[in-house]
Amino acid sequence: MEKVISTAVIKRLPRYYRYLGELRKKEVVRISSKELSEKMNVTASQIRQDLNNFGGFGQQGYGYNVEYLYTEIGKILGLDQEHDVVIIGAGNLGQAIANYADFARRGFDIQAVFDVKPELLGKEAGTVRIRAMSELKEYVLKNKPDIVALALPKEHAVQVANDVVSWGVNAIWNFAPVELRLPKHVVVENVHLTESLMRLSYNIRAAQQKKEGNEPV
Amino acid sequence: MEKVISTAVIKRLPRYYRYLGELRKKEVVRISSKELSEKMNVTASQIRQDLNNFGGFGQQGYGYNVEYLYTEIGKILGLDQEHDVVIIGAGNLGQAIANYADFARRGFDIQAVFDVKPELLGKEAGTVRIRAMSELKEYVLKNKPDIVALALPKEHAVQVANDVVSWGVNAIWNFAPVELRLPKHVVVENVHLTESLMRLSYNIRAAQQKKEGNEPV
Repeated sequence: MEKVISTAVIKRLPRYYRYLGELRKKEVVRISSKELSEKMNVTASQIRQDLNNFGGFGQQGYGYNVEYLYTEIGKILGLDQEHDVVIIGAGNLGQAIANYADFARRGFDIQAVFDVKPELLGKEAGTVRIRAMSELKEYVLKNKPDIVALALPKEHAVQVANDVVSWGVNAIWNFAPVELRLPKHVVVENVHLTESLMRLSYNIRAAQQKKEGNEPV
Repeated sequence: MEKVISTAVIKRLPRYYRYLGELRKKEVVRISSKELSEKMNVTASQIRQDLNNFGGFGQQGYGYNVEYLYTEIGKILGLDQEHDVVIIGAGNLGQAIANYADFARRGFDIQAVFDVKPELLGKEAGTVRIRAMSELKEYVLKNKPDIVALALPKEHAVQVANDVVSWGVNAIWNFAPVELRLPKHVVVENVHLTESLMRLSYNIRAAQQKKEGNEPV
């Protein structure tokens, strides 16, 4: 039987993982769902419910073993396997991704960065040299990256996404402000910065209206 | 009576807005919830439900007036007012934000960028010059920015967030991989890139297991 895990739970798992990682660093051995809930600003019953989706992990009255829970959530998140990542676009955003040390620590290895601009070729992005887009097809067919990150303008993102998927890529990390329409087997995770800013703007207005004692629109 | 709008709805509103913006550019005057749903990969009844949260906007059998709906959703999102934005951190990520033309178009004006590194001072980030962190307090007290974007390492993000909030800032756009604990009246929108990558990793594993005919963990 296939169990469907809600998007909301999947969204919270990385946060659990991050907190448990911090506790682990502080050599905390055991934590109750109550303590975890206070740290994470989620109710204790929410935490129990979330983790029950994956079989529990806690013993009534004993709380959670931090190391064990950290490792198990890591497995659920697929972090026990390495992921080879290719970045398309070596502008500021591509550079930011290529230089983000946190990713390497989690097993996401930036293997190559590509850009169309001739003046960028051979320059560094993180620990790798920037390659020409004309080499992309051969590279992808040969190296079969696990994830392709799209950090390029939306005008080109759709075409490049279609291309790399046709060359066998099954996972796209999309930063371009466009909805990709890809075959069902392809996994897409979007980071839409403008939408994030709009949510912030929505909440600013809602907070203003609350303060003024008005109904939100 | 205060109506609570669910986070899921708020998350979808910017997507509606983006699509309607595209339709508007193409001079489409009217669209049915069915057409909109096909474009957006959301069910038509979901769209009707979402928009009913804000009073509807559609006429049974006539669909939605694109221009009107675009304008009204813009108002709900607070996009009919300008937002002054200050960025802390002029590394790759801060530069990426400062250079993102989409933000200005939506009324988010990058007014200033600050960094601690002396070698960056006076250089450009987007359309502004990078200022010293030592000027931040005076700047914030004087200019009262609507939004402060934190594009700096997590070791410093917490302190800077507390500082700017104590100087009167009410909205934080946080890119640092840390949970900020701020007074309740402060609006925080997080962009946690590592968490996004972990969700992608989770979905890659889930897709693999589906393919292999196994249950997801």
